[in-house]
Amino acid sequence: MHKPVLNSRIQQIRQRMRDQAVDFLLLVRPSHVSYVTGFMGQDSWAALTDKHLYLLTDSRYAEQAEKECPTCQIIERTSTLAQAAGHVADLAEARTVGFDRSISVADWDLVRKHWKGRIKTLPNPVAPVLAIKEPGEIGRIRKAGLITRKALAQALPDLQPGITENAFAGLLDYQFRRLGATAAFDTIVAFGPNASRPHHRPTARRLRSQDTVLIDLGARYQGYCSDITRSLVVGEPSELFLKAFDVVSRAQAAALDVMRPGTALAEVDAAARGVIRASGLPLYGHGSGHGIGLDIHEDPFLKPDAQGVLKAGHLLTIEPGVYLPGRLGVRLEDDILVTPSGPQILTRRGPHSFRLAANAQG
Amino acid sequence: MHKPVLNSRIQQIRQRMRDQAVDFLLLVRPSHVSYVTGFMGQDSWAALTDKHLYLLTDSRYAEQAEKECPTCQIIERTSTLAQAAGHVADLAEARTVGFDRSISVADWDLVRKHWKGRIKTLPNPVAPVLAIKEPGEIGRIRKAGLITRKALAQALPDLQPGITENAFAGLLDYQFRRLGATAAFDTIVAFGPNASRPHHRPTARRLRSQDTVLIDLGARYQGYCSDITRSLVVGEPSELFLKAFDVVSRAQAAALDVMRPGTALAEVDAAARGVIRASGLPLYGHGSGHGIGLDIHEDPFLKPDAQGVLKAGHLLTIEPGVYLPGRLGVRLEDDILVTPSGPQILTRRGPHSFRLAANAQG
Repeated sequence: MHKPVLNSRIQQIRQRMRDQAVDFLLLVRPSHVSYVTGFMGQDSWAALTDKHLYLLTDSRYAEQAEKECPTCQIIERTSTLAQAAGHVADLAEARTVGFDRSISVADWDLVRKHWKGRIKTLPNPVAPVLAIKEPGEIGRIRKAGLITRKALAQALPDLQPGITENAFAGLLDYQFRRLGATAAFDTIVAFGPNASRPHHRPTARRLRSQDTVLIDLGARYQGYCSDITRSLVVGEPSELFLKAFDVVSRAQAAALDVMRPGTALAEVDAAARGVIRASGLPLYGHGSGHGIGLDIHEDPFLKPDAQGVLKAGHLLTIEPGVYLPGRLGVRLEDDILVTPSGPQILTRRGPHSFRLAANAQG
Repeated sequence: MHKPVLNSRIQQIRQRMRDQAVDFLLLVRPSHVSYVTGFMGQDSWAALTDKHLYLLTDSRYAEQAEKECPTCQIIERTSTLAQAAGHVADLAEARTVGFDRSISVADWDLVRKHWKGRIKTLPNPVAPVLAIKEPGEIGRIRKAGLITRKALAQALPDLQPGITENAFAGLLDYQFRRLGATAAFDTIVAFGPNASRPHHRPTARRLRSQDTVLIDLGARYQGYCSDITRSLVVGEPSELFLKAFDVVSRAQAAALDVMRPGTALAEVDAAARGVIRASGLPLYGHGSGHGIGLDIHEDPFLKPDAQGVLKAGHLLTIEPGVYLPGRLGVRLEDDILVTPSGPQILTRRGPHSFRLAANAQG
């Protein structure tokens, strides 16, 4: 990661630390550690003060950290992460602590044990900063989206009656690797009625002609995730599929219509959900979308009770669906960048995308 | 999961709850939830009292839970998991709580908020129970090991000069899927000097003739993990490789030699480490092995400061290595069951396993 990019992130986070009177920020979530330090390895934490940025890592990652973290003081720990973090915090005489509440109770107790004196804990200010994507991040997510659609296109010729969900998911993952990426999450391939379970996992079920197919997949490229869903038909679509596909397409379009800086997150969710509700088809139980970045699920989350508004630079999925247990499932998901002039779809679908041939273009 | 198996697990855990005076056990780690309830979905917690076993899940998983959890009361939550857990605990009037310290601080605060009254927290007694594998679990781990070696054997013909680490890792993952499994962790493929980093991730580096190759891979089959590492040579091995391979083989054998019920975990670690130390080659910085099961890393852990002893039914990896930065890395890893009559290797290697052809047999 280039030094100016990291410095700009650190500057924004330090500004928020000053605003919230945080004098020590402890980061334990891998994506947050990567974002602030540039480090892409594992088993490492970071700590930020007004003067210093520490990466707490161990001998396995020392070489990598030297290369990736031009702005860090690298601390090669010999004890556990939690002990090392407690010591660093104690040495820094930290008293008001921006604290990552995703830390485990076990780790936090250990941090506190090695950190003497009273402290006040405050929220971690990183999430709202990383929700606004920089040009370099947008480029990587766009590339991840391209790889995702290319992988799908290259695997599609093998989506023939007889192949199992497992094998097709494996082909998609192989294409990710061949294209220099990995799967950002467990690829979902669901044939026929299996698609009615939103979180179906691939099985030995074989594709039959006239089956509907739901594929939810995403590449991770240089740390950044894409996440798309396509719903296809082998052969001629049924009336029911056509209706569901049309409703879900319109639900996605309705959300896109209101996506601009300042729109309430709950309003975007409601726009998609409203189209499904009006159709008489059952309403989906999941959110209408979520931010993507170094994590596959991050702020902002589109749910009926979401707080806050869309901002320029937010990059999130829109993914309404229709699920008819035992019959079919249709979901469409694309990755959308919020810009001052409206939504920009990073993973464009062509028309008639449920037909295999047309969908091969992504 | 069959009801008698689940009942036996629950009985053992309840016995430990009584011994430790725990009247409410909260499970949040997916592997622990699966172990106690049979549930293989996500986003669900479990709670165990002397009379009841609850699965806290949501509408997405209701159908699956009905099928997989014959011994549970299924609670379809509408609020967050933490809120639902707090309510259930409060209704159960729980006061001494076996508590999973891997829970996040955020979740735990939320649980406590909805759970009135004072409580005393105590350790979660599940880990020592699930460290002893049942016949059904051993069978699944053995099958996962078979799939792992079969996937490697089927991919090996493509390990030819010119292929990238990324592409070969993708082929291995594809073979896992084709064989009805998934990758239990991010497959490591390291060519040449890349193998000197124990946690290398596959890159676009292409295989050259005379390269050494390190492959660390494992299938997950019906929830259970395998984890093996193979070190190979394309062409004729160098003197240095031969020496490292010989030392690592002997280190692994030395650990196996002392593996029987009652041996201190630290002694097993020391047996492997001692061979490396005596050779004059650098000592590895990671543990000598770890338990495998529903998690890829679980009790027992083989480290110099490990407490406790081996027990019959423990199932763990032995994985010494030699790492020479910028030159090569050699690691050998197999999955071993501890039986009353000694160690049983579930992932047997043939002799001369660094040669491609011989290694194809796993």
